Amino acid sequence: MNQDRQTPPGGESTQLPTLPEATVARLPEYLRALHSLADIGRDTVSSEDLAAAAGINAAKLRKDLSQLGSYGTRGVGYDVELLTSQISTVLGLAEHRAVALVGIGNLGHALAGYAGFGPRGFRIAALFDVDDSRLGETINGLLVRHVDDIAEVVATEGISIAMLTTPPHAAQPVADLLVNAGVTSILNFAPCVLSVPDGVDVRKVDLAIELQILSFHEHRKASARTGSSQYAPVKPVPAKKTAKKTATAKIDKSAKTQSPPKNVVPPPPGVTFSDSVVNE
Amino acid sequence: MNQDRQTPPGGESTQLPTLPEATVARLPEYLRALHSLADIGRDTVSSEDLAAAAGINAAKLRKDLSQLGSYGTRGVGYDVELLTSQISTVLGLAEHRAVALVGIGNLGHALAGYAGFGPRGFRIAALFDVDDSRLGETINGLLVRHVDDIAEVVATEGISIAMLTTPPHAAQPVADLLVNAGVTSILNFAPCVLSVPDGVDVRKVDLAIELQILSFHEHRKASARTGSSQYAPVKPVPAKKTAKKTATAKIDKSAKTQSPPKNVVPPPPGVTFSDSVVNE
Repeated sequence: MNQDRQTPPGGESTQLPTLPEATVARLPEYLRALHSLADIGRDTVSSEDLAAAAGINAAKLRKDLSQLGSYGTRGVGYDVELLTSQISTVLGLAEHRAVALVGIGNLGHALAGYAGFGPRGFRIAALFDVDDSRLGETINGLLVRHVDDIAEVVATEGISIAMLTTPPHAAQPVADLLVNAGVTSILNFAPCVLSVPDGVDVRKVDLAIELQILSFHEHRKASARTGSSQYAPVKPVPAKKTAKKTATAKIDKSAKTQSPPKNVVPPPPGVTFSDSVVNE
Repeated sequence: MNQDRQTPPGGESTQLPTLPEATVARLPEYLRALHSLADIGRDTVSSEDLAAAAGINAAKLRKDLSQLGSYGTRGVGYDVELLTSQISTVLGLAEHRAVALVGIGNLGHALAGYAGFGPRGFRIAALFDVDDSRLGETINGLLVRHVDDIAEVVATEGISIAMLTTPPHAAQPVADLLVNAGVTSILNFAPCVLSVPDGVDVRKVDLAIELQILSFHEHRKASARTGSSQYAPVKPVPAKKTAKKTATAKIDKSAKTQSPPKNVVPPPPGVTFSDSVVNE
């Protein structure tokens, strides 16, 4: 759920391997799986077992780890402790990172009290809000401070990562405050797009979007069962002057009213509208 | 953050378009952006403006929407209401979907009270826990019930989607209860991999993983600034019998102790270890 960026090509000035964003996103899954394996006393693990524990296919795992220079040993697999250490190092988890949390509403409150961050490399080091009723409250021994204190606290605590759980309208101004204070990574829970300068990384967690993606799959499965769908493809809208002669389809109003006829047949995959389409 | 699955090829028995998983994941972003545009009174929007509002590049947006049969009109762009309706329909949001929430701890409590689901197509319809201290509690007018009631309530409320916010050790048994009750989509917040039968979709939200990905970027940026990194690539481990003559490198213990020499140079991208590597 990154904001449409790729890990830029590195390698010139850094010793970190250049990794595709998708590989970076899977490394923490391997790490979590390795910790679970270590907890049950495993010293080595095959790529198949590690892949199963991480919920990722084995070929992809081997390719990912090969990019770190890790190949395992034939008949033995990967050394759990070594690989754990290596992935932790690549992810920059050798040090516990201090994280700020801005917006101590319902979700912020839950995150402030979440026990799962500590064991995985993060320490919530500062809480901020603007609401008088929240200021001065203490959560897990940490005082909720005013966002006006962000610059001071970020500097004092050495914070480079912030979680943003404000309402959407407040997210951009707060992000600006954080960036000006020196924060260079933001995990944004507000359902909006943040504008940040180069060098600042933003990842999004939008819980309603997660449900909407599952809703698509529910819709897909229901359609597959019944052989019908509420979906009616919208026919291309002809532009007034540039419409070609085949572009005579009208806008399918049925899609607009969400009660399309059941017998609308969508184009098969691979069929393009290129002849009848007026691209904007 | 899906569990390594692709939207399977459909189209034979469904009228829904076959869409890549990545496209499906972006549709809710377009939808959110369209709602924001409608809120400020926009009737039409160019692909560039919509892409900017969604935080996605315009070419990708045009390609995604073309897969729905939406192309916009030259010089006019997309009809906001029409496109909103179409994406909502594809996502199966024509009906408000009932969602169950299992695990009413810190995070579950926050999600049960989250106001952001309703406007985006979802109604929390049931809360479950096993903890006596939680049972009988009412959140937003909804009673916390025992997980033993899952089958009955899922049937009564017509629930097909569940959010799972239990501790990791409880996640799999609860997922089994949900699946047996007829739930076919699970949003899993527990840091573990769920095993589910075909036909059940699982998406994961692991907040520590999101932070770990940002940590990677912090590490990368710090390495780029200083030209050094704590990362030392692990040399391939030679297998006892099958090691080739070049596979004489020892395990780099420095990576294990996380204090590698600063002058370790990783292989440039494209260099493979194929000659010296013993794949497991």
